[in-house]
Amino acid sequence: MRYKVTIAYDGTNFAGFQRQPNQRTVEGTVTKAVNKMAHSERIEVFGSGRTDSGVHALGQVVHFDFPFDLKEINMFKALNSLMPLDIEIIKVEKVADDFHARYDVSGKKYVYKVYLGEFINPFKRFYTAHWRFPVNLDSINVALQDLIGEHDFTSFVASGSTAKSNIRTIYNATCKYDKVENELEFEFYGNGFLYNMVRIMVGVLLEIGSKYRDEHDILRLYKVKNRDQARRTAAACGLYLKKVYYKGEDPEHPTKLPYR
Amino acid sequence: MRYKVTIAYDGTNFAGFQRQPNQRTVEGTVTKAVNKMAHSERIEVFGSGRTDSGVHALGQVVHFDFPFDLKEINMFKALNSLMPLDIEIIKVEKVADDFHARYDVSGKKYVYKVYLGEFINPFKRFYTAHWRFPVNLDSINVALQDLIGEHDFTSFVASGSTAKSNIRTIYNATCKYDKVENELEFEFYGNGFLYNMVRIMVGVLLEIGSKYRDEHDILRLYKVKNRDQARRTAAACGLYLKKVYYKGEDPEHPTKLPYR
Repeated sequence: MRYKVTIAYDGTNFAGFQRQPNQRTVEGTVTKAVNKMAHSERIEVFGSGRTDSGVHALGQVVHFDFPFDLKEINMFKALNSLMPLDIEIIKVEKVADDFHARYDVSGKKYVYKVYLGEFINPFKRFYTAHWRFPVNLDSINVALQDLIGEHDFTSFVASGSTAKSNIRTIYNATCKYDKVENELEFEFYGNGFLYNMVRIMVGVLLEIGSKYRDEHDILRLYKVKNRDQARRTAAACGLYLKKVYYKGEDPEHPTKLPYR
Repeated sequence: MRYKVTIAYDGTNFAGFQRQPNQRTVEGTVTKAVNKMAHSERIEVFGSGRTDSGVHALGQVVHFDFPFDLKEINMFKALNSLMPLDIEIIKVEKVADDFHARYDVSGKKYVYKVYLGEFINPFKRFYTAHWRFPVNLDSINVALQDLIGEHDFTSFVASGSTAKSNIRTIYNATCKYDKVENELEFEFYGNGFLYNMVRIMVGVLLEIGSKYRDEHDILRLYKVKNRDQARRTAAACGLYLKKVYYKGEDPEHPTKLPYR
């Protein structure tokens, strides 16, 4: 029986999502719990994709095949009871045997939070990036329009990416200012994101917002195809994987990821 | 020159506020920074009162005498630059030589946050208590009225208290439900609070909200003067020292703390 499981986690104390020997990872922790439940050592857990150490998730998705047919509610409760306090199981669904958490992704939505106070806020230090320069939200919104659509994101991919193509489509990109929290909240929805792509985009957007770059510098970055020109990678702790979309879930963007 | 300094801290990784040998405490950290600035080892830092390990502050207040006359803004920046990421200096004021952070307190305001989700939320695990039972907010609001006024809080004080009197006055006590966060937020404003008093009150209030106690059980607890009957102490991590009031700051409640 195949299960699709949606999970949230605080990435602070994980060495990222992906299983690694002798490291505390999200995938490793979930894999251990699932195998413990089944008295097995062989069940593999497949995630929608990796997140780096310090990156959070509100709606990461994994799938695995379980040897018994457990009701969704029972799997939900059993898994939650086996999770450490920094992982929460949000949803459990039985799915068809050919569902794949990674290959069936049609889109992903990320949130990126930036605290704008003069000093780091003790309560936000693991949950937002920090930017202490004045920011013009209008400039950021102009720049965000340059991100929407299909582009070659070679300037926005970290070394170490194994993607064959750097072309991705961004469906929507927004930025709101929350006055109470004194935070910028970016949201990016696209058919896929390259390694560190959101964090590099946010680095560029903040520099545009603070007038260290032209409003349309992103168009230049598309052309130069040079990651060094994008400079900084915004901190991992501001990034949240908010939602993973699967085939058919969003009627406007129903297609499978066309790139690898 | 005497300085009054308002500070916020995330209490998670501190062994409480009060200085202790070989422990990481808030008072110890601030004392070290102030002495470093002055190339001294003798400056003492006085807080408005202690907070336990795990308890947070949005507006704790300390005072100290500094050997040089630094502008407030310079003291503010210098102190902040010497703070670890879990302490933030909020405000620096020069005050009269007879101002005392502890003895001149006229009132304190505490916030207590309770997350009501079925499972612990990874992002709130250090910043809220967790209560998984259904809660009736109306019952809590009825019970809160019994707290307001001058009462003998002997049933609400933890062993280890060194207070000579257990009589305190609560000026205001409220509880709001935040639907987006699925949290209860209690606020208590009074002329002083005994050791663990807020956490014991919240334990009782949650039990009233979930019908494990009568709505007016607090009146009974005043009479029995027996801490065991109040049972649970709500978790430290839900508690925030929000504001410390000094003589004259609140015209409705301008008096000095009359009890020790």
